[in-house]
Amino acid sequence: MLITPGKLLAEINSPDDLKKLDQAQLVQLCDELRHFIIDNVSVYGGHFGASLGVVELTVALHYVFKTPHDNLVWDVGHQAYGHKILTGRRDTFYTNRVYNGLSGFPKRKESEYDAFGVGHSSTSVSAALGMAVAAKYLGQDERQHIAVIGDGALTGGMAFEGLNHAGVSDSNILIILNDNCMSIDPNVGALKDYLTDITTSRTYNKLKDEVWNLLGKLSNFGKSAQEIVSKVENGIKSTLLSQSNLFESLNLRYFGPVDGHDVNHLVTILNDLKNIKGPKILHCVTVKGKGYGPAEKGNATTWHAPGTFDKITGEIFKKVYEKPQAPKYQDVFGHTLVELAKANDKIVGITPAMPSGSSMNIMMKEMPDRAFDVGIAEQHAVTFSAGLATQGLVPFCNIYSSFMQRAYDQVVHDVCIQNLPVNFCLDRAGFAGADGPTHHGAYDIAYFRCLPNIVVAAPMNEAELRNLMYTAQLPRTELAFSIRYPRGQGVMPEWRTPMEAIAIGTGRKLKEGNELAILTLGHIGNYAVEVCERLARQNISIGHYDMRFAKPLDEKLLHEIFSQYKKIITVEDGCLQGGFGSAILEFMADNNLHAEVRRLGIPDRIVEHGEQHELHHECGFDAEGIERTVVEMLELVPR
Amino acid sequence: MLITPGKLLAEINSPDDLKKLDQAQLVQLCDELRHFIIDNVSVYGGHFGASLGVVELTVALHYVFKTPHDNLVWDVGHQAYGHKILTGRRDTFYTNRVYNGLSGFPKRKESEYDAFGVGHSSTSVSAALGMAVAAKYLGQDERQHIAVIGDGALTGGMAFEGLNHAGVSDSNILIILNDNCMSIDPNVGALKDYLTDITTSRTYNKLKDEVWNLLGKLSNFGKSAQEIVSKVENGIKSTLLSQSNLFESLNLRYFGPVDGHDVNHLVTILNDLKNIKGPKILHCVTVKGKGYGPAEKGNATTWHAPGTFDKITGEIFKKVYEKPQAPKYQDVFGHTLVELAKANDKIVGITPAMPSGSSMNIMMKEMPDRAFDVGIAEQHAVTFSAGLATQGLVPFCNIYSSFMQRAYDQVVHDVCIQNLPVNFCLDRAGFAGADGPTHHGAYDIAYFRCLPNIVVAAPMNEAELRNLMYTAQLPRTELAFSIRYPRGQGVMPEWRTPMEAIAIGTGRKLKEGNELAILTLGHIGNYAVEVCERLARQNISIGHYDMRFAKPLDEKLLHEIFSQYKKIITVEDGCLQGGFGSAILEFMADNNLHAEVRRLGIPDRIVEHGEQHELHHECGFDAEGIERTVVEMLELVPR
Repeated sequence: MLITPGKLLAEINSPDDLKKLDQAQLVQLCDELRHFIIDNVSVYGGHFGASLGVVELTVALHYVFKTPHDNLVWDVGHQAYGHKILTGRRDTFYTNRVYNGLSGFPKRKESEYDAFGVGHSSTSVSAALGMAVAAKYLGQDERQHIAVIGDGALTGGMAFEGLNHAGVSDSNILIILNDNCMSIDPNVGALKDYLTDITTSRTYNKLKDEVWNLLGKLSNFGKSAQEIVSKVENGIKSTLLSQSNLFESLNLRYFGPVDGHDVNHLVTILNDLKNIKGPKILHCVTVKGKGYGPAEKGNATTWHAPGTFDKITGEIFKKVYEKPQAPKYQDVFGHTLVELAKANDKIVGITPAMPSGSSMNIMMKEMPDRAFDVGIAEQHAVTFSAGLATQGLVPFCNIYSSFMQRAYDQVVHDVCIQNLPVNFCLDRAGFAGADGPTHHGAYDIAYFRCLPNIVVAAPMNEAELRNLMYTAQLPRTELAFSIRYPRGQGVMPEWRTPMEAIAIGTGRKLKEGNELAILTLGHIGNYAVEVCERLARQNISIGHYDMRFAKPLDEKLLHEIFSQYKKIITVEDGCLQGGFGSAILEFMADNNLHAEVRRLGIPDRIVEHGEQHELHHECGFDAEGIERTVVEMLELVPR
Repeated sequence: MLITPGKLLAEINSPDDLKKLDQAQLVQLCDELRHFIIDNVSVYGGHFGASLGVVELTVALHYVFKTPHDNLVWDVGHQAYGHKILTGRRDTFYTNRVYNGLSGFPKRKESEYDAFGVGHSSTSVSAALGMAVAAKYLGQDERQHIAVIGDGALTGGMAFEGLNHAGVSDSNILIILNDNCMSIDPNVGALKDYLTDITTSRTYNKLKDEVWNLLGKLSNFGKSAQEIVSKVENGIKSTLLSQSNLFESLNLRYFGPVDGHDVNHLVTILNDLKNIKGPKILHCVTVKGKGYGPAEKGNATTWHAPGTFDKITGEIFKKVYEKPQAPKYQDVFGHTLVELAKANDKIVGITPAMPSGSSMNIMMKEMPDRAFDVGIAEQHAVTFSAGLATQGLVPFCNIYSSFMQRAYDQVVHDVCIQNLPVNFCLDRAGFAGADGPTHHGAYDIAYFRCLPNIVVAAPMNEAELRNLMYTAQLPRTELAFSIRYPRGQGVMPEWRTPMEAIAIGTGRKLKEGNELAILTLGHIGNYAVEVCERLARQNISIGHYDMRFAKPLDEKLLHEIFSQYKKIITVEDGCLQGGFGSAILEFMADNNLHAEVRRLGIPDRIVEHGEQHELHHECGFDAEGIERTVVEMLELVPR
């Protein structure tokens, strides 16, 4: 249901409408936009702090630049709610992140104002540079290309690769560094310290102020921005500004730091920068959650995506349950890791900027010298883990399945080829839910299973996760070990089970049946349990096997299965191409076994966002879909 | 056959022997080591310029540090020949890069002195940092951890991720920047300009000289290095040194630039640095090919891995053939791209630091505004290409198969999810040959095939490559298009064939047969042609189909095939798990088709280095292996 927008905002259906406003009205518009976001997110949930932090920047950018002719790329996209609202999606914004509704991230299919789809971090410089270089080649010199990137995203190596190219590109790109000292969790690393340093250094700021004052004074004389910059540059060429700056080292003209919440100042600056050719960076200091007291004062991580809340009191709503609930897999991971680490002093934990999302923060708090947040740096996280493993430590490197894509080469080159005993916990495996396709962990079974020297495992429940983690930390001298599990709740309210080792590559027979068997991998197997129970009530007996490992397969169990059943359904919360089901087909071919096999899983197309169960349903592998497949197969005329 | 080493070198069987030398003898040892490398590579081939450039550094490092107790990580590893020779592999060095011989890269299995296996670039900081952090945790504070990284490798984003963590790690890591302005081709990007700038800036160097002189003078008074540094730091804290430097921005103590060919100076500096705790960087300026005239004066790219040559004249030997030879696939790519680009002004080319290796340099020379070397930056290369595609350009992004692993997330997130029409040419697909497992392109069929919105194609010969490239550049608004082809020679001396479009997802029937058919993908199909011909002479008629596309499959053709044959062999130059053969199995399962299928390809283990044909033979999918499989299958008692 549409939340009522403020008076000015109600009239803005596109950036063209925004441009009709007098500059003096922008402060009010920012206020209305901010409240519209607060009103929406408090009721419907979603990302919060990041969008509040860039309200002024969003308004200023669309006020100054000719979007969509000028390309505006938001890095990650958490922060693009204001952008969506100003670009024709105000009245549908209440469908944000809902099945069939708006995406929580910019998306090319959704709007021409979304110049580049995002979700993962650190891509914006490369994408905007591609656009800028294309425009130059196509003779569209007037077009502007803007990448808005956070200080957290800047720690991702690909952003640096982009800057390294941008600095010599002579193209029309403006990089806006949205510096709020945060990614989802507080930003870490040397770069963060550096940015803090330059935004707080008095000497530095004094000089910057002089530069900006000069810029301001010259503007008053009506000179063109280019002349101004030329003068400014001459004036300070040999001073700190051009020499002391990391960005200037990379040949990017650096401007700032400026207050990212002064919309009028931003408009002035952006207007000036618009006329300066070549690659440049504007350093804006912003506050995540700006303008909403509880978020500004509270924990920025909590307010990154708080769920629904009382906007007056700032109380975040929590569901109250009558019965004890099953925990999130994330928490099982976090607590179990600490439990294991207490008994095994070789265990260390690594997370690339996801301490709270992965629950690695539990270990970071309890054992700060043994758990490392390395920043948004998946590649480094994996090779750093490999380095730790060479010295006999037992690393648990926790990376979301879709983010592991970014460290794929490091898994191949630094872990598998060297056959090092690194443990990977792949969080958010399968459908991520409301975050949508960029965050779905759809491909990991396929992209890991094709590699040598790695175990590919998935627990069906909390106890299994604990047992797999227990198994992974037992002493071994080789073999990477990956454990994938989904976002969200498991099935065992009493999850603190005693742990025991699982023989690598062994599955479990959960239920024997006639004629047809369901082979599942991971949490999704719980749907099959439902189906088996339901069909048993109709006196239809089907087998169910929790295979646990996509690699190595339990060949002994599979030989039993194929000697007993002629109809097989495989179910996985992963892509059908090359996944767990394909592993079963390979086993069959290699052993010249024949059966009718139906593979259920993520189809060969992009599946959009929605609740996990909605997407499972859409893809036909929820309980209903599995049951339908069983019924179809059993009703088939035997060949 | 062993090349005779010089007098000193002959006595050095380990770094312990090296340490017995008087420092005054090191210059001579460097000379002998350099000649030993020249003598070997001129006769046996291999990487050349890089190892010559670090002779002094190699000697100094092993002289000063206690390897292998101290961990020495060579980035990429092209340059580690001297290291291998000094660490017990002098007498086996003539087997370098030969099947069953020494690896061309450091490798943990080969020697305890090879602290970390390498091959791909930019991993050393992360790996060494992992070791350093582990040592600290394990209370081994005396251990040193050294990463030697080139200026080219430093452009790779993961190196930056490592630096960002190293800068706040308080661990014992020394990063040696081996600055020779080169990767394989000349290094590019803003960072290179910056490094050139600081090594040539007179003001800067003057200051540096003063610092180093101070260091030298204080050393003479016998003060400890820590005291010295403390004094130095106090003296210059507020000057250019600590503020103007990119590395200092990342909280790494920066030393240099120093002459990387002054072995005595290097020994002094490394001894000093050994006693300075915390993360630090030593900037060494070196010359690729140093000490060998033709390499120093000639083209550094040519002398990167020149093949065999006359060490006296510097003449690089070229094989002389009686008949015209088939071209390399690389050259077919390079010339065809230019040919297409002349007719289609939307085409642009992108290479991440492999202009000569991929032959993108042909386009870079002919159309400098339309072909981009973006540095060692695969991630950026892909997303930059995606950005170009959004503006209607037709990018051909050429990346080696094994390096594409590093841009996997960008292919998923920026290309496939957005369904952008980017063209990927995957060079070095299949076995790379002498470069070994880090460079084998083993996994790309599997890791691409599982993604939506991408075509996975492989040409069987030069004409097919041209046709696929022609097809890929035809106007389309969506769908990524990947074309994989091997390193080296094709089969068509007359390769400049007229080009024609291939319907996406169609294969070719090359030969009809009875009972058994071979389905091949790509160049490896030429083995099957041989087998068919050989068997035909024995009146055994088997079918051969060049499927051309692993995705989408030619379902029509496959239905024909499965209606005709009950025995199928699939052959691919890629991993068996999840590859082309598995795609065929999936097709069968989805259509409830049954046949006996044997899949030939790269097995589920790390295959070491060797000539491509040797490795094909080892893995049983050269002509002999395919024929053996045919014979086995045809002799089987029908079930």
